[in-house]
Amino acid sequence: MEARIIHALRDIAGTEAVHADDESREAAAGDKWFARTVPDVVIFPDSTSVVSEVMKIASRENIPVTARGAGHGYVGGCVPAKRGIVLRTERMNRLKEINEGDFVAVVEPGVITGKLQDAAREMGLFYPPDPASLKDCFIGGNIATNAGGPRCLKYGVTRNYVLGLEVVLADGTIARVGGRTHKNKVGFDFCGLFTGSEGLLGIVTEATLRLLPLPPSRAVLSAGFSDMAAAAAAVQAVFAHGFLPSALEIADRFTLDAARAYGGGKIAIPPGEAHVLVETDGQEGAVNADAGALATLLKNAEALSIESAMTNEGCENLWELRRTFSASLKATGLKKLNEDIVVPRGKLVELVEFGAELGQRYSVVVACFGHAGDGNIHVNLMVENPDDPAVQERMSEALDALFASVLRMGGAITGEHGVGLAKKRWWPQAVDAGSHELHRRIKAALDPKGILNPGKFL
Amino acid sequence: MEARIIHALRDIAGTEAVHADDESREAAAGDKWFARTVPDVVIFPDSTSVVSEVMKIASRENIPVTARGAGHGYVGGCVPAKRGIVLRTERMNRLKEINEGDFVAVVEPGVITGKLQDAAREMGLFYPPDPASLKDCFIGGNIATNAGGPRCLKYGVTRNYVLGLEVVLADGTIARVGGRTHKNKVGFDFCGLFTGSEGLLGIVTEATLRLLPLPPSRAVLSAGFSDMAAAAAAVQAVFAHGFLPSALEIADRFTLDAARAYGGGKIAIPPGEAHVLVETDGQEGAVNADAGALATLLKNAEALSIESAMTNEGCENLWELRRTFSASLKATGLKKLNEDIVVPRGKLVELVEFGAELGQRYSVVVACFGHAGDGNIHVNLMVENPDDPAVQERMSEALDALFASVLRMGGAITGEHGVGLAKKRWWPQAVDAGSHELHRRIKAALDPKGILNPGKFL
Repeated sequence: MEARIIHALRDIAGTEAVHADDESREAAAGDKWFARTVPDVVIFPDSTSVVSEVMKIASRENIPVTARGAGHGYVGGCVPAKRGIVLRTERMNRLKEINEGDFVAVVEPGVITGKLQDAAREMGLFYPPDPASLKDCFIGGNIATNAGGPRCLKYGVTRNYVLGLEVVLADGTIARVGGRTHKNKVGFDFCGLFTGSEGLLGIVTEATLRLLPLPPSRAVLSAGFSDMAAAAAAVQAVFAHGFLPSALEIADRFTLDAARAYGGGKIAIPPGEAHVLVETDGQEGAVNADAGALATLLKNAEALSIESAMTNEGCENLWELRRTFSASLKATGLKKLNEDIVVPRGKLVELVEFGAELGQRYSVVVACFGHAGDGNIHVNLMVENPDDPAVQERMSEALDALFASVLRMGGAITGEHGVGLAKKRWWPQAVDAGSHELHRRIKAALDPKGILNPGKFL
Repeated sequence: MEARIIHALRDIAGTEAVHADDESREAAAGDKWFARTVPDVVIFPDSTSVVSEVMKIASRENIPVTARGAGHGYVGGCVPAKRGIVLRTERMNRLKEINEGDFVAVVEPGVITGKLQDAAREMGLFYPPDPASLKDCFIGGNIATNAGGPRCLKYGVTRNYVLGLEVVLADGTIARVGGRTHKNKVGFDFCGLFTGSEGLLGIVTEATLRLLPLPPSRAVLSAGFSDMAAAAAAVQAVFAHGFLPSALEIADRFTLDAARAYGGGKIAIPPGEAHVLVETDGQEGAVNADAGALATLLKNAEALSIESAMTNEGCENLWELRRTFSASLKATGLKKLNEDIVVPRGKLVELVEFGAELGQRYSVVVACFGHAGDGNIHVNLMVENPDDPAVQERMSEALDALFASVLRMGGAITGEHGVGLAKKRWWPQAVDAGSHELHRRIKAALDPKGILNPGKFL
């Protein structure tokens, strides 16, 4: 990058906020996926007006700009594929307001999700979205990716909690969209459009988020089943009885065996080749009643074992098993290719059966676990010798087959992680020609020079 | 309209689908608001391809096209302000699929909302959005206006139930956006963008809607309070105890008095100058527990009376009072100007106090009732002599003052009904310059000739 541009950026953002050294640039090159590109310069803006002025320069000079939160994405979404500027939001981390009368929080993008949840909880308020990385990830990244989590079954994804946004467009225009009311019919839904747009349409500099009353009680039930078909039938039975639990998770044999090997004596693992976890929340009396009814229901669905907990600590203990799955799979020594596909809810068994078939066809173990209630299953290809070119070729074909099958089932190639770089290859198959045209037009309308997070799916 | 165009439209849609007679044109001139403009021609397409072909002609010939559902809007949203073509969706009324495994419904835009709800309920499924006109209105209109209703407090508005859409753009392009999965991170949120866009961005020809498991039980509590401040405090107490009820409605003295005068002996009306209605739903045991806890809570909040019901029939009886408010106010003989404004939830008392002050200042009765939980209150100016130009002038000033005050409180000028023609005058104050620019760019990207529902807020 030319020295005059670095100079101009320092004039705007302050010398201490503009980092062109190797270490800073390397630190902004990638996320949790493998792809990396080192940007030309990294900027830590501390205000909306700095972001706006940076975008004006970038727009004038045709410089790519990629916003970066905590870097906990799984698809290379924040990799600055065309170099240029990375905008890091660490310094825009003020939790500006939590209002218990209005049930809203006003935050800057660099606020850690878990910190917002804790602050809300202390006031009897509740911010439901719970991505796995919530102790580290930023709200800004959650908004860019429309983050989910187990609780989204009942409570919905990040988009359902974004009431208002301040956004800087590619040309530096600052727009405030939405507001702080829980309903709003004033014009187009720009909060929804920017949420999940993966940094391609604008840069969020402030968000007004909807909070709920904190449910005072919760219960978790953890059950073992003989196989995935029995577990899937139990999932269907939960819905058939009119329950909409706050979470409904499932795991298969390989995942459980990995947890058994990894967890040792620390975590109780139920018997059988499949696992179901159900959480319900609400008032104490209601939760007691629901937990009893769910236990009966799981028993009738031929659960081999049922453990339940009503205290917060007990619930967290039962969640420990679910939370250990990812680490357990990694601990097998195999390389885990995690694909967060979604199928229509009724296709769960079909998906798992296809996974087994896929594993046989491509000589790879396929481990499935995830958000059964949403049909959003993490299908993990467990790869031996991941550096062997022949294996890479075979896995590439296996992924082609997986995504083709998911699309045939009426599913989606990503339910939480986004497209980023990782799913870019399959994106053209996942949208029809009209939808592609819509994406192209909207991108051109908001970012005509294509400087925002270039090199991604558009 | 030139004969050659009518001819071309008949070639495409079939002679029987293209109506240029006065009666058909008059019938498509307005909705429940007062504004009316008679279109040049009315078309009843029976398929997506006919809609697409009509749009190609309209685009080529620069003819305005306004889509029309059941015409139950309150803001003139479907008034064909620039004449041209009205597209009526009555013939596209197939309920194509309700799938109890996938928890989705696939519908054409002309399906009546209540009919979808009934069909879902018979299969143990639940489509929550419940606009007041649900027995008559169309899903297509619900999507165009992002319809709400009392249950949206817990369950969210129409947008939260739109998983996938087939949309015809201004130039006839057909796009399928979203899908049939309950989570989907594949590209931009076009389902959200089209939902609530009031026919300005495209014409919905099919929708895939999310269904929930049907809660098997419900309970309603109906309580009288000494005044609105006490009622508002009770509303806050419900939230403070961690309840998120499926509905939480409030009404003021004038509204209750009107119901007393109108309802006669048929409907029990609680004592006091304010009314609160709470509904909770879920499993039977949980609902029993919640209803008991809510009764205690309302009592502690100094309710003058509490009635409760646990059966479906009993619940509907208690709702009867709430449902009669609109008719009761009309029956006073005064002209009702219904403004569905929204304030941040904590500003409820401030809004009602402002309403009283507004009434005094402009010599008009202001009656408030509505969705207290959302802050979405129907503020009704009850006008005597509505045809008197001096009164009209005064009411116009009163509305200016109302909307200015709502915006000062951080509120929104419409929470359910939309902008349409009725709120067009205040729209520029309700969005900032950046947001206005965004609206302009998106409209230009999708409808460059401005032929979709022209004459509205853009």
